[in-house]
Amino acid sequence: MTAYPSVHPDLDLVLERTVDVAPELVWKAWTTPELVVRWFAPRPWSTSSCEIDLQPGGRFHTVMRSPEGEEFPNTGCVLLVEENSTLIFTSGLGPGFRPRAAGDDFPFTAVIRIESAGDGTRYTATAIHADASARKSHEEMGFVEGWGAALDQLVEVVKGR
Amino acid sequence: MTAYPSVHPDLDLVLERTVDVAPELVWKAWTTPELVVRWFAPRPWSTSSCEIDLQPGGRFHTVMRSPEGEEFPNTGCVLLVEENSTLIFTSGLGPGFRPRAAGDDFPFTAVIRIESAGDGTRYTATAIHADASARKSHEEMGFVEGWGAALDQLVEVVKGR
Repeated sequence: MTAYPSVHPDLDLVLERTVDVAPELVWKAWTTPELVVRWFAPRPWSTSSCEIDLQPGGRFHTVMRSPEGEEFPNTGCVLLVEENSTLIFTSGLGPGFRPRAAGDDFPFTAVIRIESAGDGTRYTATAIHADASARKSHEEMGFVEGWGAALDQLVEVVKGR
Repeated sequence: MTAYPSVHPDLDLVLERTVDVAPELVWKAWTTPELVVRWFAPRPWSTSSCEIDLQPGGRFHTVMRSPEGEEFPNTGCVLLVEENSTLIFTSGLGPGFRPRAAGDDFPFTAVIRIESAGDGTRYTATAIHADASARKSHEEMGFVEGWGAALDQLVEVVKGR
């Protein structure tokens, strides 16, 4: 497991939970676009498309759709891939490690850590921000509730429900 | 060698040269702070300090000093390390993959590729920008001349002159 990143409590947001599905299945749900679209956006939102090129510099792309049908595309960059253990991607760079033009919304780096815990998985999702104001915006958008609901959906998908 | 990034001619700047020192020595000069400070800034500028934590997410830090003694610190993030082959770092993220706050100068991602070429090294340094305007600013700052002069200094250092 990589030493990075380290969490800064004033700047970052963390969702930590244990779920009763195996780490390999959580990894598969996070890295297979056909599965991601089934759980990534908390209902009543949905995910209308997903593309992942699973290597450093690769494209991480999702389109979330609101209940009213409005679409919100997000294109970021994969940074680190440690199979069944750690996935890191960021909206702070574009695909191919290209810097973002200024003036976009607050970017964040997502760190998904997956560890074996009994028969299940210790799941830690961290959002890393540039500053406290970006953290606050993300928190007020409902990071913890949203990522928690998405995780519940991921578990449903993995269990084939 | 990683597939990424791919060069975009309207957005990126490239310095490509063959030098008569071995790839392993070019790699060492780029990744050893005690050597970096001896060649990184084109004279009459100098490099007053350097810190590199050579792993994805690690800190890449330099301080360049003008002939008048003014210091210009730069802190970026290591993205990819393939020994004796490819080093990628960016000022578009901070250490630990942390996004940058808006309003900084134009960021860029640097890709240093090192390949064996006869008794020497094919050296390709690419600067990847968010947009054409950032590319232009970097070009007008003298990217090609500056990075070329630094490479000449690197070769001098490696040869022990």
